[in-house]
Amino acid sequence: MDLKALHKISYGLYIITSKKGDQINGQIANTVFQISSEPATVAVSINKQNLTNEFIRESKVFGISILAQEAPLSLVGQFGFKSGRDVDKFKDIKYKTGTSGVPCILDHVLAYLEAEVINEVDVGTHHIFIGRITNAEVLIEGIPMTYAYYHQVKRGSVPRSTPAYVPKQAEGKEKMNNYVCDVCGYVYDPAQGDPENGIAPGTPFDKLPEDWVCPVCGVGKDEFSPEN
Amino acid sequence: MDLKALHKISYGLYIITSKKGDQINGQIANTVFQISSEPATVAVSINKQNLTNEFIRESKVFGISILAQEAPLSLVGQFGFKSGRDVDKFKDIKYKTGTSGVPCILDHVLAYLEAEVINEVDVGTHHIFIGRITNAEVLIEGIPMTYAYYHQVKRGSVPRSTPAYVPKQAEGKEKMNNYVCDVCGYVYDPAQGDPENGIAPGTPFDKLPEDWVCPVCGVGKDEFSPEN
Repeated sequence: MDLKALHKISYGLYIITSKKGDQINGQIANTVFQISSEPATVAVSINKQNLTNEFIRESKVFGISILAQEAPLSLVGQFGFKSGRDVDKFKDIKYKTGTSGVPCILDHVLAYLEAEVINEVDVGTHHIFIGRITNAEVLIEGIPMTYAYYHQVKRGSVPRSTPAYVPKQAEGKEKMNNYVCDVCGYVYDPAQGDPENGIAPGTPFDKLPEDWVCPVCGVGKDEFSPEN
Repeated sequence: MDLKALHKISYGLYIITSKKGDQINGQIANTVFQISSEPATVAVSINKQNLTNEFIRESKVFGISILAQEAPLSLVGQFGFKSGRDVDKFKDIKYKTGTSGVPCILDHVLAYLEAEVINEVDVGTHHIFIGRITNAEVLIEGIPMTYAYYHQVKRGSVPRSTPAYVPKQAEGKEKMNNYVCDVCGYVYDPAQGDPENGIAPGTPFDKLPEDWVCPVCGVGKDEFSPEN
């Protein structure tokens, strides 16, 4: 049995949001699909250990913010590698409160949906929430972020689609080693640098400032290892 | 409420197979996601009216054949626009019988999974089947077909990735009208022709043989309309 077959399944990338009383939270998820069109229903799968799971079970409402391909790694990191139990994930994030009371992210998002839970299925480590769509808005036209694209960007194998992106330097320069984040798998490629965070292309890993952190998950330099 | 927001959700494209006694069947679906890794489980959503739904409910097993990007439109049409009640969908299709007894397609497929139903959720027009993976194999490396890519190919807005593909003819030639299949939305583009079925690039719609049929869904020329 070769479970790498599971890696061939295609996904988008979403921020699933919810609320509990006057608290709000959100998290990255890739497991979203539409079920029926009349009425419009969707399914999302959320790990039971996550705060968003607790919020959805309590409030019976959730939001789906559909990320654009050009969303920065830092946005995915903010919602994907931190817990709302420890940090305010919505600090510096532009969002509005939807008709159901859940936050709907406005930056780097193509469209959002709001849904009311009509069924909750216990599937071991996760719950599948079946939601009837109560509100939906398209914010901008564009290409949705896919899970595959995100991993390629994180691996440095496609350029980051950000205004700050600077192409790889010409060949012939001395080869500098890539470093991989032990926590989230992000690859620091010296040829690309980390322009979103002020690191110029061509900066070797050992010349990064001591307070530089992984742009995806926020851990320090000591949690990086040389790429094999 | 703008339900076009739902069109921003990303999907792959799969042939979901099952069996009932010694009968087999399969159908196209885009709604597949992994739920948990220990044990490995997946969810698929299948319309209640489909024969594959009946087979899965009866046998409690299903297969997921993950289509490669270069899969021809005709393969999607064979499993997507016909019913196993009317035709033998596996005629001329290369497949093997998996360990669970379901057919696993071998052509134009990157990998397949077999699963045993551990939960069945009634969601109105569809059932969501939750399956524990019992077998999985990667057949070839390659890019998975996505639902978005398939629709672009069907629209003629990206080239068909087949050996028979011939690039559009040089500009300057007389513009010939596209024709759209009323049933499945396939666009016949005279500049591309239909090389998979022996129609050379540059063949206008009205010069197609009388027995030419839509390469996706199989209806005749009379069910095509000029594209606006």
